[in-house]
Amino acid sequence: MNAVTKEQGGIIRYEQGRATEKSDLVVAEHPVTIKINGEEFATLVCTPEYIEDMAVGYLASEGVIAGIDELQDLWVQEEEGFVHATVSRWSPLHRQLYSKRYVTSCCGASRQGFVFFNDAKTAKRLHDAPVELSFDDVFRLVRRLQESSETFSRTGGVHNAALCDRQGILLNRMDIGRHNALDKIYGHCLKRNIPVNDKIIVFSGRISSEILLKVAKIGCGVILSKSAPTQLALELAENLGITAVGFVRGQSCNVYTHPRRIIECRQMLNQHAAEAERPEL
Amino acid sequence: MNAVTKEQGGIIRYEQGRATEKSDLVVAEHPVTIKINGEEFATLVCTPEYIEDMAVGYLASEGVIAGIDELQDLWVQEEEGFVHATVSRWSPLHRQLYSKRYVTSCCGASRQGFVFFNDAKTAKRLHDAPVELSFDDVFRLVRRLQESSETFSRTGGVHNAALCDRQGILLNRMDIGRHNALDKIYGHCLKRNIPVNDKIIVFSGRISSEILLKVAKIGCGVILSKSAPTQLALELAENLGITAVGFVRGQSCNVYTHPRRIIECRQMLNQHAAEAERPEL
Repeated sequence: MNAVTKEQGGIIRYEQGRATEKSDLVVAEHPVTIKINGEEFATLVCTPEYIEDMAVGYLASEGVIAGIDELQDLWVQEEEGFVHATVSRWSPLHRQLYSKRYVTSCCGASRQGFVFFNDAKTAKRLHDAPVELSFDDVFRLVRRLQESSETFSRTGGVHNAALCDRQGILLNRMDIGRHNALDKIYGHCLKRNIPVNDKIIVFSGRISSEILLKVAKIGCGVILSKSAPTQLALELAENLGITAVGFVRGQSCNVYTHPRRIIECRQMLNQHAAEAERPEL
Repeated sequence: MNAVTKEQGGIIRYEQGRATEKSDLVVAEHPVTIKINGEEFATLVCTPEYIEDMAVGYLASEGVIAGIDELQDLWVQEEEGFVHATVSRWSPLHRQLYSKRYVTSCCGASRQGFVFFNDAKTAKRLHDAPVELSFDDVFRLVRRLQESSETFSRTGGVHNAALCDRQGILLNRMDIGRHNALDKIYGHCLKRNIPVNDKIIVFSGRISSEILLKVAKIGCGVILSKSAPTQLALELAENLGITAVGFVRGQSCNVYTHPRRIIECRQMLNQHAAEAERPEL
């Protein structure tokens, strides 16, 4: 396994008006090229750990495999940075399709918000995901992720993602690439057949459309983040049935979509509905 | 021009133990597909402003055009999210090459750190870039970028990049995509033939290999950031002659590579060299 951080010498540190030479830990960045049935498919620049999980998660989220049973073989050339995958359904035709923009739904009347064909194909609809939590859970889970981010606080350079239930963190992955951390979680769950639609994703960065789609592909109904969402991400969350909670800071947050999975929101909305139905006195 | 932020209704805000409904600004995310001589080349998801500059910068940094004179025509279909470019040298063969991993230098003895063929081709060597600055300049420029980031503070969702000289910010661009903000700067400078090798890039995010390469492609010899660099970015900065300064916070920072462009570092290193040469008393 490659090191996740490396000692970097020859740094000049300037503080309190003085420059001194020192060394410090910096986060590693490692290119990994995924070959499918011998053909180069994609190169991911990543933090060099859990590379097999990342590759499995990436192949599933890109729709190259529909399930773990379609992956016949996968081996990692760690130092050289190659992953060799053998899959049961693969033709060069696939590849052309993956990069194509999915114009019809993106600019059409339905505005589902998908940009790429493979996103429309592999993102799951999660309206019925059986997960609920309280605001206390939201604050505790985001705090736990921050406390666990040792490499982040030491080097300031990585994103963190965690798969959680209400009680706490089940699986925690970090990467310099936002989407890689989520692919590592996805691959882990696929390989072990771990159910995810009753789980929660906590993410250290902004909720962009790319991140929201990854959560939909993994199949989780809730994403929590200390950062902001984008408008396209919220449009996708609305359509795909995902509860997006952003700006989780201390004891405050914003619930953007599908608030009924948060117990206090459901109570508030039920009360509003009851008040609206009550005849005026 | 599309709006950079949009009003989002139906948000439930929770703070001080109370949930209330409100609306808030969220940052827009807009897919733009670049077609070259009629063929779909790439789709960038971006903040919808300065799209023409972004496309020009992207084409140059990918090596599709070697200079602005090779761009025969470019027009933007704003609402639909398409850019139609006509270039003088283009064949489908190009396209295959662009996505190819550049294995020889990446894993070979020279370890220049390039991952992709087009990076090795378009990144400039900047050892002779005529730019110098003081630590006071470093702190002032980073502070100016932070002060100018209005959308960022309002929505928490975008990255900011600025082209600067010692005196201050010359050009400031933001985008939800880290690299797009830099492409917008690159395209602006190319179209107007603005010299850049005596300028400084200030960036709001982490200095990853991708960002460092973009700076090398634009042709600036200095990058400043409040965030951390990665190890691969520093390897590239060392090889390409770029001064990378990270963790710029208040009155402190780390100079990682090519410190002699910082006046105080050069003085310190000259003094060390003089002391090493002086015979012991």
